[in-house]
Amino acid sequence: MEPVPGALLTDLYQLAMIQAYLDSGQTDTAVFEFFVRKVPPQRNFLMAAGLEQALDYLENLRFSAAELDWLGKTGRFNARLIDYLANFRFSGEIHAMPEGTLFFQNEPILRVTAPLPQAQLVETRLINILQYQTLVASKAARMVLIAPGKLLVDFGLRRAHGADAGLMAARASYIAGFAGTATLLAEKVFGIPTYGTMAHSFIQSFDDEAEAFEAFARARPQNLTLLIDTYDTEAAARKVVALAPRLKQSGIAVQAVRIDSGDLTVLAKSVRAILDAGGLGDTGIFVSGGIDEDTLATFAREKAPIDGIGIGTSLVTSSDAPALDCAYKLQEYAGFPRRKRSTGKATWPGRKQVWRRCDREGRMMSDILSTENDAHEGKTLIHPVMAGGRRIGPYPSLHDIRAHARRELARLPGAIDSPVSYPVQVSQSLGQLAAAADRRSDLLEARP
Amino acid sequence: MEPVPGALLTDLYQLAMIQAYLDSGQTDTAVFEFFVRKVPPQRNFLMAAGLEQALDYLENLRFSAAELDWLGKTGRFNARLIDYLANFRFSGEIHAMPEGTLFFQNEPILRVTAPLPQAQLVETRLINILQYQTLVASKAARMVLIAPGKLLVDFGLRRAHGADAGLMAARASYIAGFAGTATLLAEKVFGIPTYGTMAHSFIQSFDDEAEAFEAFARARPQNLTLLIDTYDTEAAARKVVALAPRLKQSGIAVQAVRIDSGDLTVLAKSVRAILDAGGLGDTGIFVSGGIDEDTLATFAREKAPIDGIGIGTSLVTSSDAPALDCAYKLQEYAGFPRRKRSTGKATWPGRKQVWRRCDREGRMMSDILSTENDAHEGKTLIHPVMAGGRRIGPYPSLHDIRAHARRELARLPGAIDSPVSYPVQVSQSLGQLAAAADRRSDLLEARP
Repeated sequence: MEPVPGALLTDLYQLAMIQAYLDSGQTDTAVFEFFVRKVPPQRNFLMAAGLEQALDYLENLRFSAAELDWLGKTGRFNARLIDYLANFRFSGEIHAMPEGTLFFQNEPILRVTAPLPQAQLVETRLINILQYQTLVASKAARMVLIAPGKLLVDFGLRRAHGADAGLMAARASYIAGFAGTATLLAEKVFGIPTYGTMAHSFIQSFDDEAEAFEAFARARPQNLTLLIDTYDTEAAARKVVALAPRLKQSGIAVQAVRIDSGDLTVLAKSVRAILDAGGLGDTGIFVSGGIDEDTLATFAREKAPIDGIGIGTSLVTSSDAPALDCAYKLQEYAGFPRRKRSTGKATWPGRKQVWRRCDREGRMMSDILSTENDAHEGKTLIHPVMAGGRRIGPYPSLHDIRAHARRELARLPGAIDSPVSYPVQVSQSLGQLAAAADRRSDLLEARP
Repeated sequence: MEPVPGALLTDLYQLAMIQAYLDSGQTDTAVFEFFVRKVPPQRNFLMAAGLEQALDYLENLRFSAAELDWLGKTGRFNARLIDYLANFRFSGEIHAMPEGTLFFQNEPILRVTAPLPQAQLVETRLINILQYQTLVASKAARMVLIAPGKLLVDFGLRRAHGADAGLMAARASYIAGFAGTATLLAEKVFGIPTYGTMAHSFIQSFDDEAEAFEAFARARPQNLTLLIDTYDTEAAARKVVALAPRLKQSGIAVQAVRIDSGDLTVLAKSVRAILDAGGLGDTGIFVSGGIDEDTLATFAREKAPIDGIGIGTSLVTSSDAPALDCAYKLQEYAGFPRRKRSTGKATWPGRKQVWRRCDREGRMMSDILSTENDAHEGKTLIHPVMAGGRRIGPYPSLHDIRAHARRELARLPGAIDSPVSYPVQVSQSLGQLAAAADRRSDLLEARP
């Protein structure tokens, strides 16, 4: 696979605007914030993810000689722009919520403070990185909450939207509490535990299902999981029972069977009975196939004897909400707060902070969205993570991010999945700043 | 951005199965086909895309020394597997529908014929490549059909699921008939025309909207499009009218204005009137913001004076159907047809062909799904594209693929978007092959 060059993976208009900024001397400090305007319908929270890849991108963004040459040859850009890009290094500051933090509508999870052309240039790919991992972590967190104690595994690579999505879905779902992934590269790149069973093609390539089971068991004795739904699920479960003693003599245990089709609760119950009666009480049941958080809730309600679940499409595409209504907006330029006022898309201006209040048991009660230097009750969620284009301190390990996410989920109020949404209050200071920004706009507008 | 290594971007179980295949001598010729089980609800056709990247992947798939070393160190795989991967070259045959071809449920768009371990190894990434581009081309084709004569542009990179999706969405939508994309890299990699305007941040960074328009116009005079909805859309349109004569003196024409929020039809009509009254009858109106094919239908119904449309999220996430119910299934092994018989997921076995009958005007009437060597009326859709692991002949240019897609869309029967689905008939020969496969299974099953 050809590597995707990062610097040109952006919208044409970013370079057009930078050229115009340079030509007109608009190079003062700009502040942009990335936030989600609305939590998707039927959701009550989001989980921040993707910051590490965003910082990687900012630290490593360079234009190669070949890229500059190509840009020059398009005939679209002047020498000043090409020179600027040739020397480009991101030198700004980043403030952000730690990955794994829960957040709500209008709360920024990342703030960029940098000379305007720099902050503009990074817009497209920053959104591309943050949106997707946040989308998947938020979806995965719902599944984790609904299926406590179950082994949840990302099976989504094949239905993910391309290579990058497949890899990043493994990371984001692991942060949210999944046990691991089937994607091998995620183990190599991120150290995420991988899980794997077998495909129907394996069974079908043998003339005999039991023969296929035995061949696989002998070739791959560790963590043995046998796929039993290729022909007749219950008959296959009985074949596993018949095979198990012979495997045991070779020191091989059937750790689990997997069911990938049919009524999974009904089949899990009958297979559980067959395994138990056959002395395979320790053999788990793993299921997969079109599962989302509603299916997981059904399993719980129906008391399906299911130990592990492979989840693909609904996780990696966030099928009920395949995108977030997110934005990266200019909040301040050259020391003055800015905001868009257009219909339905007005935003809060200025550098912001989020304050979270919890009750005595540590449960989240409410947030306040304020200007950066306000003082409110609760703890602040946005912290500096990059200065002068370099990270501040070592980045937390994936293990630590995951532990933080787990603590966050434990703080959710009980009714978080109800139609009542979590209260996010806008501070008086922010209201005043918005009014000041609008007054300034109106005054400038009224100039002769 | 770190390049994503291709060979390990797969499911763990593929390597586990290959080890078991090698250990048990299951290395005969296998035939797998990729198809979609069901066309998504509210859709009546799909458009094949992604074949070129699939063939690139197959031709270039290698395991690097570093990857093999890492695989060895996981302790999961034996020396036979590592040796096999070290020498891996895809040497099989590929048959496929040309990109841009319309297809329906159960019709394979790609067939792999190769030694079983090879055909198994490529499963995950082949699905990952074909599914996504097919998804986007199919969505884009609906938009193209609904908005004939409009300039449609892919604006989706930021909301796409990662880097790869952003780039490939540009390609797939261009195949389906989009005029181009905002994604600069798509121009460099694929030669797709790029389009770009400006962001609200550009306007907001200036104290004065008209000043921002003029600065941008002077810095980027070619194909000038001004974004007019940052504060008050109609007021901004009047500013454009006021500015235009001064720009004209410098030889700069305002090619279009862009509106990104509010009631787009209403605003387009009032802006059209302002522009026309101001002598800017040649200045087009470009809109964007949360648009999908239903919005496009509304524009047409309301006779909105809109010339071009930027479409992002709904296109690149295929928002109404963010995944296809697709599969890559073993159809034949060692000369015998195979099929999965499990509940709700039974498949047609063997190597297949699709025959398409058209009426005298060239309109599609019906398809027949048959075994490979059947003879039926109509033209065949599946052709050889790779033999011995190498492409047969030069691959068609993107221009030619796009022309093919345009011809395909012109062949759609008028009622294609009605609830009545296009008839795909299963040939007698295929029914007989399925029955034979089942009889053979049953016989083998009944062995003592």
